[in-house]
This record gives sequence, structure tokens and C-alpha cells, in this order.
Amino acid sequence: MDQIVSPGPASAETTHQHVTFEDGLALECGARLERMTVAYRTYGMLNAARTNAVLVCHALTGDQYVAERHPVTGKDGWWDVLVGPGKPLDTDRFFVIGANVLGGCMGSTGPRSVRPNGEVWGTEFPPITIRDMVRAQKRLIEHLGIARLFAVIGGSMGGMQVLQWAADYPENVFAALPIATASYHSAQNIAFNEVGRQAIFADPDWQGGQYWRTGAIPARGLGVARMCAHITYLSEQALTRKFGRRLQAAPKDAGEVMALFGGMFEVESYLQHQGSTFVRRFDANSYLTITRAMDYFDLGADHGGDLASAFRGTRTRFLLVSFSSDWLFPTPESRAVARALNRAGANVSFVEIGSDKGHDAFLLDEPDFHRTIAGFLSGCAAHAKL
Amino acid sequence: MDQIVSPGPASAETTHQHVTFEDGLALECGARLERMTVAYRTYGMLNAARTNAVLVCHALTGDQYVAERHPVTGKDGWWDVLVGPGKPLDTDRFFVIGANVLGGCMGSTGPRSVRPNGEVWGTEFPPITIRDMVRAQKRLIEHLGIARLFAVIGGSMGGMQVLQWAADYPENVFAALPIATASYHSAQNIAFNEVGRQAIFADPDWQGGQYWRTGAIPARGLGVARMCAHITYLSEQALTRKFGRRLQAAPKDAGEVMALFGGMFEVESYLQHQGSTFVRRFDANSYLTITRAMDYFDLGADHGGDLASAFRGTRTRFLLVSFSSDWLFPTPESRAVARALNRAGANVSFVEIGSDKGHDAFLLDEPDFHRTIAGFLSGCAAHAKL
Repeated sequence: MDQIVSPGPASAETTHQHVTFEDGLALECGARLERMTVAYRTYGMLNAARTNAVLVCHALTGDQYVAERHPVTGKDGWWDVLVGPGKPLDTDRFFVIGANVLGGCMGSTGPRSVRPNGEVWGTEFPPITIRDMVRAQKRLIEHLGIARLFAVIGGSMGGMQVLQWAADYPENVFAALPIATASYHSAQNIAFNEVGRQAIFADPDWQGGQYWRTGAIPARGLGVARMCAHITYLSEQALTRKFGRRLQAAPKDAGEVMALFGGMFEVESYLQHQGSTFVRRFDANSYLTITRAMDYFDLGADHGGDLASAFRGTRTRFLLVSFSSDWLFPTPESRAVARALNRAGANVSFVEIGSDKGHDAFLLDEPDFHRTIAGFLSGCAAHAKL
Repeated sequence: MDQIVSPGPASAETTHQHVTFEDGLALECGARLERMTVAYRTYGMLNAARTNAVLVCHALTGDQYVAERHPVTGKDGWWDVLVGPGKPLDTDRFFVIGANVLGGCMGSTGPRSVRPNGEVWGTEFPPITIRDMVRAQKRLIEHLGIARLFAVIGGSMGGMQVLQWAADYPENVFAALPIATASYHSAQNIAFNEVGRQAIFADPDWQGGQYWRTGAIPARGLGVARMCAHITYLSEQALTRKFGRRLQAAPKDAGEVMALFGGMFEVESYLQHQGSTFVRRFDANSYLTITRAMDYFDLGADHGGDLASAFRGTRTRFLLVSFSSDWLFPTPESRAVARALNRAGANVSFVEIGSDKGHDAFLLDEPDFHRTIAGFLSGCAAHAKL
């Protein structure tokens, strides 16, 4: 595998490992992408029987750099704690694939891509659904010569993709691990996403979505969107533990705003940092496109209002995981999926991990979570005679 | 009392009933307001003994128009369900006072006021604390010839003021009713406030806080701030019950954004409406000033880290109320205040009202809540021989 390293904010210019499908993809909205690129990374070796592949699906702001230094940010892979040699998702044993979602901004076709007429898609990029993302991944898997995935795993929006995979391609998924997710996006989650979108729209640098024409990016709006979303990834307990009400000195370049308000709480500084680093790596129109895909996700509604019928007759083995302090995708939403799978007669395990770290727990070093994943995968591997 | 009715967005120009203290007010930050105006409204009649006065303290975006048609918005008073003839806070029995907080924008001295040098304060307005707000109210009460309030009541930031009143002026408060509040602002609440402030700062129409010079207001930033805050006032259950995942048709003037994303969820339309109506009545710099006052509030820290010592020896009777689905000021935060009052040997009742309406419940028609208030006030009135 060729490691592409090009640190810095030039993500648009970074060349990502990818495959381009010249026949494009028909989208759920009725539009058709004439060409489709899927950027991806792999870790470990595909066995001779091609039966040990695990697809890792990323969340809203994740990407394909699951378990290696990120070429744009220079940071560790977003699931380095879980994926690697000897880790719960063991790359000595499994061939792990990470793909940037359709609509993303790390190399897969999305709003920042150039369309066939030579123009950037921008806001003309068609609306994407979770199912479209999964269809693009299916093409990638076929391209890699893999008939059946040993497992599909992902948290948050990644978990939505896992559920969609299991519903649409049950014969192609031996094990499915939807983590900290739900079968639909709740009204509250739609509301938070909408705040983020409105913050982007409100930034004049968004320029009606045509910002690539001027080189200015809607950094303030996207930063506010990220700040707001970031609060929902944590828990009140985690925020209290990490920051409490501690004040810190105002930075030297704080200017009149800080002069007005005096000391700054650490939690504010932390959030501002989250916002300002995010905008260097993420495309605002991708943020709009992907949050919309999450909002539209409702797997039960797609199956006549009965989530169980999405999984009827499935032979896929499921492990659902939720985290006790996650209020973005709270445990009852995972439990509802577990119940539907039970109604469908599926083989399903459901574990709620006790954690005070909120939704973010799925990305963090949570030993109970990692033991659960490792154990489930080992059991499945034995069944699959891997 | 003269009712001032002037509907429309011209709140800055509306004349509000007020009193001006020419000797100003020394603020906690060390600065001094050379003159101070407090805008207020009263309902009912003060009795001859001047013993039946109830001060109603408003929340972040409330004001003095507690129980009458609002002169700027034309809407009912924000606590019309609770305050009025024959209502739980009975204006046939009590003399009810509502005052716009210091730092507000409905007539009391705040960032929109003209300072002695003839300039608008704007971002030069000094930082205000909850204690400063209470000191301003104390001046108003003295001006009205009232030595002791029969009761002080308020929800959310209004409840913070109630706690501050009880701590600072125990001899002047017979009964205190802090509703849906806490003795300090949590890290998560500071974080949400910070998102709102950053959204305002991000709006170029904020113009470094000097927007009154051009007539443009930072409507987009303030609107996003309101949208984000509004989610925290509701509960997931309330949002699901009211909107669920229902779609509505895009408005005719939706333009390219809606063309891109197709149908809109009802919850989005609702939030956008909340944002756009709010900016017509509220001043962005006041929003900055008042959210900051909330964030700085920590009554226990002000008393050496022991909240009980804020109330030691008090003879005030307390009723604390929380709402089961309120996640902005959750029940444990009220319970902590109740415990501190118990440690201080205070006379305290604490009731958690079962409601799925979130923080907003304190503003809504919640019969259990209203019965609780009415009962407590009646009992106190008997004790006070009213």
C-alpha cells in the first residue's frame, strides 16, 4: 500500500488512494453521478479465500484514514485505538477497509469534486442518502474482489451504514456491528444538524455555496456548526470532569470581545479550538450534504414502518453497542433496533457500555467496549472458520 | 398604570415605564454606571402595609412584560399562564412587579443604552453579574417603598436571581421560589452559550458590536444563537411529539438551499421561525452580556465553596421546583440547592414536576406546577398574615 503523506490544510489538493467507476452511480434521489470516485485505505492482508475483509464505516466528519497518520491533519487515525495489529479489530487477522463516504471531502465524489462539465459540484451536488453511501461502498468491495464481508462496523452515522448494509445486502455481510447509532435520526438530532447548516448559510463567505470560486471558505459558520455539534458528542459529566467552571487567561490576540467579557472558561477555549481546527480539514458543502443524509435516514420507514421487515430472514450476526451517557444516540434507540432484530429472528447481541464520555465514547479508549468488540469478532471468526 | 402599546420591531424606540437612578450603581466588576435606568411593570395593588409585593425575575430572553400584551411583539405576557387575577400568582391578592434586568434591552440600562458621553454603550458596556441585576432590582423595590418582598420568584436565570436575592437580602425576602435553576451554570450550559456568542461574533453585521452605527443588525448570528439555545429549552420527547420526522413542503422563497436539499423537516421550519422572530425583539449585545452573567454565576464559589453558607440563618421560606425532562437545569442541580438549604437549616420544600416538555415547562400550562406554586404561596401568605 502506498502511504500518501502531505500534512497541512491542502486537503483538496492531496491525492488520496482511490478507484473511479466510469459508469457512475444511480442515486436514490433519481439523479445519476456520471462518474464516481471512492477514496479508500486498507490495513492488513486479504486472505487467499477473500473471507477476512472488514469494512469500517465512518461517522459524519470521519474519513478513510482509520488506523494511520492522517495525510491532511497529521493526526493519528480516528480509530487507531480499535484497529491495528493485535488490537480488537486485529489487522494481523483481518483485512480492514476504510472508505470515504460518497458526498465526503477526502477524495470520494462529493460537493468539492469536479463534475463532467468541468465545474465544481458545490451546492449542485445531488442529495445523498445513507443507502447511496452503502451502494458506493458495495462497488468498492466488488472492485476489491470481495464477495462477502466478514464484518461491517461503524459508529454513529457509520452505524447507520452498517444497518443499511445488513438490510440491503444480507448475503454479503457475515457480521454487522452498529455502534452508538439508531435506525432513524431523531427530531432533536435533526434540530442540531439544522443549527449547524444555518450557521454555514449565515456565513457570507459561504457565498451561496460557491466559495471555491473565491478561495475564501465559510470558516466562521462551519466552526460554529462544529462547536454546536461537538457539545452533543460529549456528556454533561464529561464536560464537567474535563473543564468544570475553570477559567483561563484570555489569549493575547483576544481583542475587544475578550476585553468586554474578561476571563474565558476553559470549555469555551476547547470548543473554539474544535471549531477552528475542523474547518481546515472539512468542506462546508460536504457538511451540508452529509448531515442531510443522516437526517433523511429512517430504515423502518423505508420498510413500510416496520423495522423488523428490513431484516427478516437475515443470517447476519449482529452486535449492537450503546453507551450509557450518549444522549445523541441514546440506549433506547439501540434497544429499539435490537427488538426489531429479535422480531426478525436475527442473531443479535446488545451491550450497553457504562461510560460517562457521551457519544464520543465509541472513539475513545473504553476497555469494556474494546473487549466486547474483540470477543464478538473472535466468536464470529470461529463460526466463519476464519 | 399606563399601557404602552407600539407593536413592531421598534423596541429600541419604544418608551418603557421606568425609573432612573441618577446616582448610578457600582458594579461587581469594579466599574460604575453613572446613571441607571430600570424598566418595570406592575400588576395588582400594593396593600396599605406594603407587604404583598412579589418580584418576578425573568430569564435570559424575558423582560418586564410578565402578564400583559407585549408592546413590541404584541404577544401575551411570558408568564400570563401563572400571573393574573385568580391565577396561581394572584394579582387580586399580590402586587406583582416585573423588571427588565440590568444589561437587558427592554428599557433597563444595557448595551443599547446611551452612555453619559452621548455614545451607545455597545460592547463597551461593562460585564454584569446576577448580583448586579439583583442590586438594580433592590433599588427599584426601595423606590417603590417596599421594605420586604413577600416573595421573589423566577425560572432559569430568573431562579438564579431568586437565589441571589435570598443570599444577599434574607431579611427582605419572606419567600423565595427558584424554579428550574441551579446555583451555578454548568460546563455544558456555558458551552451552549458560547456557541451562541460565537454565532453572533461570526456575523459580519455584528460589526465588532458597533452595529447600531449602520442600522444593520446581526440577525443571522443572533438567529443561529437562538435556534441552538431553543433546542436546549425543549426535550427530545417534546420535539418528537411535536414534530417527529414529519416533512413539510419547501417555502416558495426557499431558493437554492432548499432546491439542493429538497423537503424540509417541520422541526427545522419551527427552529428557523424561532430564530427569525427573536432577532426582531432582542439586542445581540444584550444577549452577549446576559449569557455571560449566567455563565459567571456560581453562588457556592462566592461563599467559599460552600453553598449552605450563602443561606446560613435565613428565615426565608423556599420552594424549589424542577422538571423531570429539563436537561438544561436538571433535577440534580435543584436537589443540590435543596441539600445546601437543608444544611443551612432553612425552611425548604422541593418538588420535581413530572413533565416531558423540558426546561420550557416552567413557562407552559403545567397544572401540577401551578398547583404547587399556588399552594406554597397560600401557605406563606397565611404565615405572613396577609
